Amino acid sequence: MKKAEYAERGPVPQDVIAAVAMELPPLAAGQVLLEVLAAPINPSDVLTLTGLYGLLPPLPAIGGNEGVGRVAETGEGVDAGWVGKTVLLPLGSGTWRTHLIAEAKGLVALPDGVDVQQLAMLSVNPPTALLMLSEFVDLQPGDWVIQNAANSAVGSYLIGIAKARGLNLVNIVRRESAVESVRKAGGENVLVDGEKLAKRVAEASGGAAIKLGIDSVGGPATDNLARCLAQGATLVNYGAMSGEPCHISPASFVFRDITLRGFWLSPWYRNATPQRRAEVFGEIGRLIATGQLRAPVQATYRLEDIKQAVAAAAAGERDGKILVLPNE
Amino acid sequence: MKKAEYAERGPVPQDVIAAVAMELPPLAAGQVLLEVLAAPINPSDVLTLTGLYGLLPPLPAIGGNEGVGRVAETGEGVDAGWVGKTVLLPLGSGTWRTHLIAEAKGLVALPDGVDVQQLAMLSVNPPTALLMLSEFVDLQPGDWVIQNAANSAVGSYLIGIAKARGLNLVNIVRRESAVESVRKAGGENVLVDGEKLAKRVAEASGGAAIKLGIDSVGGPATDNLARCLAQGATLVNYGAMSGEPCHISPASFVFRDITLRGFWLSPWYRNATPQRRAEVFGEIGRLIATGQLRAPVQATYRLEDIKQAVAAAAAGERDGKILVLPNE
Repeated sequence: MKKAEYAERGPVPQDVIAAVAMELPPLAAGQVLLEVLAAPINPSDVLTLTGLYGLLPPLPAIGGNEGVGRVAETGEGVDAGWVGKTVLLPLGSGTWRTHLIAEAKGLVALPDGVDVQQLAMLSVNPPTALLMLSEFVDLQPGDWVIQNAANSAVGSYLIGIAKARGLNLVNIVRRESAVESVRKAGGENVLVDGEKLAKRVAEASGGAAIKLGIDSVGGPATDNLARCLAQGATLVNYGAMSGEPCHISPASFVFRDITLRGFWLSPWYRNATPQRRAEVFGEIGRLIATGQLRAPVQATYRLEDIKQAVAAAAAGERDGKILVLPNE
Repeated sequence: MKKAEYAERGPVPQDVIAAVAMELPPLAAGQVLLEVLAAPINPSDVLTLTGLYGLLPPLPAIGGNEGVGRVAETGEGVDAGWVGKTVLLPLGSGTWRTHLIAEAKGLVALPDGVDVQQLAMLSVNPPTALLMLSEFVDLQPGDWVIQNAANSAVGSYLIGIAKARGLNLVNIVRRESAVESVRKAGGENVLVDGEKLAKRVAEASGGAAIKLGIDSVGGPATDNLARCLAQGATLVNYGAMSGEPCHISPASFVFRDITLRGFWLSPWYRNATPQRRAEVFGEIGRLIATGQLRAPVQATYRLEDIKQAVAAAAAGERDGKILVLPNE
């Protein structure tokens, strides 16, 4: 058994983490032993390693926040029928490891016949995309939305959810080489950020009023997006891929009444009612099962290669998510 | 008769405007002739000259948006008792001139015995300050607010209105030399922007939760203010004295749920009910009449010296408003 552990945080995330041997205690009553099949490296995982995330676990800690596993063994009092089932790993459990122990009563069984790598990314990015399209502006079919970093995993989910809901989406990327992957993911109106973006967006949308902007880049890219929005629109930021603070011109706030908000999934998980969670994951589950929702995967890594995996996830230019497959 | 007119806009505002001779037609029925006593040069006037304001009048245009005058002559059908009365100039009427013609039925008579220079600044900055303290966050006596550019005219009004309403205010300035003028204006908790601002603010406020931030500087100063705010607070921007876009860290939006909004008085004037206007100017009028509300005046200029006056208003470091006194 192995785990990817870190005992300190630092600016170069791959320097602080390493795969080391691990032992687990025997199962207690009500517990199950899970083999981890796949776990993604999300931007929030990288920020947790560098110390820049909004919630930091006590040290030492095991990396990884979400993933999918298979039940290998059941403890006393647990139905042996669970063995072999594919299940969601408990959120925040340190998922970059070969095995983990979980309580049986919280287990969520996943459908058979669905791509395990896609299921491994179910808990973080898809609800982020869905909730940003739901919680800030009351959007109706036919309404227009714009996002940047459209080639990111959240960007891909936004494309799928917007399409399923009948929304029009403008997709901005930072480099020409990313256009094709967004088109492959089903994205329309794909434009490269830069000069006269608002004018090019207006041409692509036929001058439609864009009611919601979704930014995960920061720096001048935030302002570029703001300039594409309609009077009174909302701009939601959920990340800073550029590493820069958001720039936004006072003229956008003052003369065009743009509101800038932030989205963070963590308090949503804390505060959402069970009914609301069921709605959100019901919609996501259906869209993943039918293939309407999927995020591109750039590469998979073994747990032994966690340093290379984290370095790849932290690199600026990617065309898909980095996944760790600890039992390959 | 003279007016300060511009026929083009340009980056150096004093270069495009000049005092020139003017003639007015005879008064029509229902009109009055006003002598302009005092008119301020607001930041919005400077932005109108440089073309960066949100609403630009057709050219050629006369500068100035607000001010105070005295009725010199009445047209047919107007009560001759108006002659000699001090009145508010109609908003947006091009007030940097010796005389203007107005409709008698819109005239607002001002009380005698109140400083005419203070009354000349009644229409723009005091409602801006009052509405920013009213329209975004439901503040109760004892609540905490923070502003930057506290030595500006709006900053002085904020100090007076916050005090009258029992609010606690932290006042940030950009240079040590401005501290004294803020203290003279009645400001407490005066700090100079820079290193560890949030820590120094927390010391000054005893760690109180600051629910509202008011920014008119932009650039990194916006982020400095955001870092002083409580979880879930609102930051309102109403200007960009630094000439830079607002910078704000995604961590502030995402992890601390800060909302960034803009305030502009122009749509408020368009949309406010007569009752709401009466409430707002009633409160302002009482506070000016009792001396609780006043903005410092740095210097007054004759209309002939409009270029020097505009240059002084556009300069970064001021300790009060620039006023034009066209009939001195």
